[in-house]
Amino acid sequence: MTVWITRVAPTEPRPGPLHGLTMAIKDNIDLYGVPTTAGDPRNTMPAATSAFVVDRLIEAGAVPLGKTNLDQYATGLVGTRSPYGAPHSVFSDLHISGGSSAGSAVAVASGEVDFALGTDTAGSGRVPAAFNGIVGIKPSKGLVSTTGVVPACRSLDCVTVFARTVDTARRAFDVMAAYDPTDPYSRQLPQAAHKPGPQRIGVPDKPLGLDPLHEQAWTEALDQAAKLGDVVPVDITALLETADLLYSGPWLAERWLAFGDKLDDDPAVDPTVRAIVRKGAALTASETFAGFDRLTALKRRSEPLWNEIDALLLPVTETHPTLAEVAADPIGVNSRLGRFTNMVNLLDLCAIAFPGPARTDGLPFGVQLLAPAGHDHQIIDLAAVWCGEQPTTPPPADGVLLAVAGAHLTGQPLNNDLVLRGATLAFEARTASDYRMFVVPGPLPRPGLTRTTPPVVGLGIEVEVWRLPTEELGGFLSTIAPPLAIGPIELADGTEVLGFVCTADAVDPSQEITASGSWRNYLGTGSGT
Amino acid sequence: MTVWITRVAPTEPRPGPLHGLTMAIKDNIDLYGVPTTAGDPRNTMPAATSAFVVDRLIEAGAVPLGKTNLDQYATGLVGTRSPYGAPHSVFSDLHISGGSSAGSAVAVASGEVDFALGTDTAGSGRVPAAFNGIVGIKPSKGLVSTTGVVPACRSLDCVTVFARTVDTARRAFDVMAAYDPTDPYSRQLPQAAHKPGPQRIGVPDKPLGLDPLHEQAWTEALDQAAKLGDVVPVDITALLETADLLYSGPWLAERWLAFGDKLDDDPAVDPTVRAIVRKGAALTASETFAGFDRLTALKRRSEPLWNEIDALLLPVTETHPTLAEVAADPIGVNSRLGRFTNMVNLLDLCAIAFPGPARTDGLPFGVQLLAPAGHDHQIIDLAAVWCGEQPTTPPPADGVLLAVAGAHLTGQPLNNDLVLRGATLAFEARTASDYRMFVVPGPLPRPGLTRTTPPVVGLGIEVEVWRLPTEELGGFLSTIAPPLAIGPIELADGTEVLGFVCTADAVDPSQEITASGSWRNYLGTGSGT
Repeated sequence: MTVWITRVAPTEPRPGPLHGLTMAIKDNIDLYGVPTTAGDPRNTMPAATSAFVVDRLIEAGAVPLGKTNLDQYATGLVGTRSPYGAPHSVFSDLHISGGSSAGSAVAVASGEVDFALGTDTAGSGRVPAAFNGIVGIKPSKGLVSTTGVVPACRSLDCVTVFARTVDTARRAFDVMAAYDPTDPYSRQLPQAAHKPGPQRIGVPDKPLGLDPLHEQAWTEALDQAAKLGDVVPVDITALLETADLLYSGPWLAERWLAFGDKLDDDPAVDPTVRAIVRKGAALTASETFAGFDRLTALKRRSEPLWNEIDALLLPVTETHPTLAEVAADPIGVNSRLGRFTNMVNLLDLCAIAFPGPARTDGLPFGVQLLAPAGHDHQIIDLAAVWCGEQPTTPPPADGVLLAVAGAHLTGQPLNNDLVLRGATLAFEARTASDYRMFVVPGPLPRPGLTRTTPPVVGLGIEVEVWRLPTEELGGFLSTIAPPLAIGPIELADGTEVLGFVCTADAVDPSQEITASGSWRNYLGTGSGT
Repeated sequence: MTVWITRVAPTEPRPGPLHGLTMAIKDNIDLYGVPTTAGDPRNTMPAATSAFVVDRLIEAGAVPLGKTNLDQYATGLVGTRSPYGAPHSVFSDLHISGGSSAGSAVAVASGEVDFALGTDTAGSGRVPAAFNGIVGIKPSKGLVSTTGVVPACRSLDCVTVFARTVDTARRAFDVMAAYDPTDPYSRQLPQAAHKPGPQRIGVPDKPLGLDPLHEQAWTEALDQAAKLGDVVPVDITALLETADLLYSGPWLAERWLAFGDKLDDDPAVDPTVRAIVRKGAALTASETFAGFDRLTALKRRSEPLWNEIDALLLPVTETHPTLAEVAADPIGVNSRLGRFTNMVNLLDLCAIAFPGPARTDGLPFGVQLLAPAGHDHQIIDLAAVWCGEQPTTPPPADGVLLAVAGAHLTGQPLNNDLVLRGATLAFEARTASDYRMFVVPGPLPRPGLTRTTPPVVGLGIEVEVWRLPTEELGGFLSTIAPPLAIGPIELADGTEVLGFVCTADAVDPSQEITASGSWRNYLGTGSGT
């Protein structure tokens, strides 16, 4: 009988941001008091503590409902390599669930839990998401602690999360991502500021050779890519070559190091897992360094890609195999499944898998967005847009709001000095009603704002409020000519932002233009407000 | 006969920052038209191009005078493992020169060239500096291209520079450090901003077990450490354990991969190099991953050190062996020489070796400063201070000069808001003569500066000009209350800096205090200027 979840007694949820959400935990991640089998029934010792990430989720209000089946020792993308049976996709009895986080994906897709933890070394957090029509976040390496997780390839392993919506997955992710000084692979990795302006979405510039049903769904997905931003065809050869390297290179030896001692002739050992990982025993140290050398070169070759695009859209897999196909060729089918996923951790990328257009036979078709490490929130937000959800990641805290009223307005001569510094228009507003505007003479006439003393109620002045990356503020300030300066300005709604003000020596009463209401009006190019 | 330099015909120097400086090149680095032997006479093919770094130095005006002898394939810290003979220290016929960059150090110390290139994987750019009383800069990994350098451990190899003064070494270093997209190990690594305030200089908190002559010099060196900053005793156990790992771990296999095919039974092969590196052939891939795992854990253990200190002062070696001692125990003596140097590249640190107090027997005693990658300029400057030279590294370009005239002055209530943001007092000045000062009323009275229109010649106003880290500018601006703002201010010497100005609504003629000349004078706490 096939198992996908082994239930545990639910506990009372704690107060917190995940209060009352139910979760399943892949059975290579420790939950206090329950054995962590990693798909090997000989591992019967109850865990003495919960994994770092599980503790965080419980603290935040999530309730564990059970441990989930997996490809033994997380070695597989199929879900069939387990003595506890092979789960199938929730969409088809005949098709695989994908793995290795098989049970976690099924538990989420079938509605048994709100979210579930997986792991992803080669694609185990994305392939089962794709095969069950759900979302899977594969965080940047080191962003989520692996303390209390059974290692597969320690240098590559990531804890992932599955959910039915991007929003639920992101809420869990935000709790999971925390530096753990006791995990040597944990990293303090600040999230990149959201890039201003339209995102550049890379798509492969050559056909991918998908199976026909996948191909049709992928063609539809490409049509939809434009809703995320500007679509940019790119060469992904270096990425595909890196994906090949995961199993042709030395990393099998890392699995051999992690659990090779368990792969004896005991019937509890999955014969395919044993056959694959035993190859790691024969690899040499110099082959390992040669593999790293090759990876370093491929990383370098792939880097320019990220100057051209902000995220890369790919299918998760090239096909969706049946259980029978895997049984007939357990290694070959599996290795083809990793073609678009294997390279992600080797190249230090983050990823999110989510449902693309369904196939014409009713099976789901999963797509993924990839970006360099530290851009997790950026691709999560893009996935939310794709799925028709609200991107709720807060804007970066370090952007400075700056009100401009004259030559820096959109379409005015100095606007580019904002744009080229990565500033984005945050909103349009008016100043508080007691601001006055003067013409400051010079080669380029500019408006000077100041406040009336004592306050007199007027209409306020039209401004644009731009968000400028903090690190650009110094450079921007160096361009400002007297008598203008940057200081606090009060907007009509009472908000205070930084903005252009003019110093006391600039005010010539004969040049007051407050009544224009806006610099554009004064120039005769305004909207007539 | 012992060779330390094989001369090449000098060329006309090009114009540039290194115009006319002569250089020697370690013979594992390509110079166009000359064979790169790497200490193996069978390598007779003239180099088809110069190494990336050599090209840069020639372009900058340096003139190559020759190629220098080394421990074969840069495997050794002694200088004796070469078919071209074993150079001795310029201070003693009986004592080793150190290696592997043996000839480069001797060529510099003997005055034959102004500077010389070395390489440093385990200490080869620092040990020979120490044994010849000169300066050796070991740049951050990836900062100097290794294109055209014979690999030893590709993932660790660094090109280094020797000179008789910190200044000459730094001038060469500044030319050498450049991103090379064709070298997969090249990194774009911005130099960290100089930390404001006194540097914290770490020193080992336990005795190091040096030989007695070294110990005495080291004791004197510790007495001198205070001239660099605040001396902080720290635990360096994790660093010493990492140093052990270089040869007990898998990295010999990286050498085996790089030049194992050359280590046959030919008499040209140094027997010690062959014996050591052949061990790399027997190492397995899983041993390699185990070594990386151990290194990752040691890195994590060593990281907190760099929260406590800005640089670590260590001896370069624990002793200075004789040629006879090395001949008697070629492997044992060598491996003890790396005790304080081996860990530097494994932990991604930068280093500079320079002369400490001489030993009582007249031999030189070398010390080194270490810091995390990207802090090269910081430790180079500290070494310059130690050596009585001028630290000439320009201040970081991204600090913003900010003139303050009131509550932010030293000793005034808001000064701490600058200090806590890492700002440092750059200089004191007066504004241009046509500035006026007014008292701005409020809970905390403040001065407001503005310029007279039309200009009237006065005395100017006393200001302090602080350098504020650019990334702090946004936060600092958010603390400023109206009517003050930040804008350009002209100083008495015509320099324009940012500073506090007041907006037009703030000026109350009855509150003018320009005649005080300074806020402190107005408050009655001034110096009476």
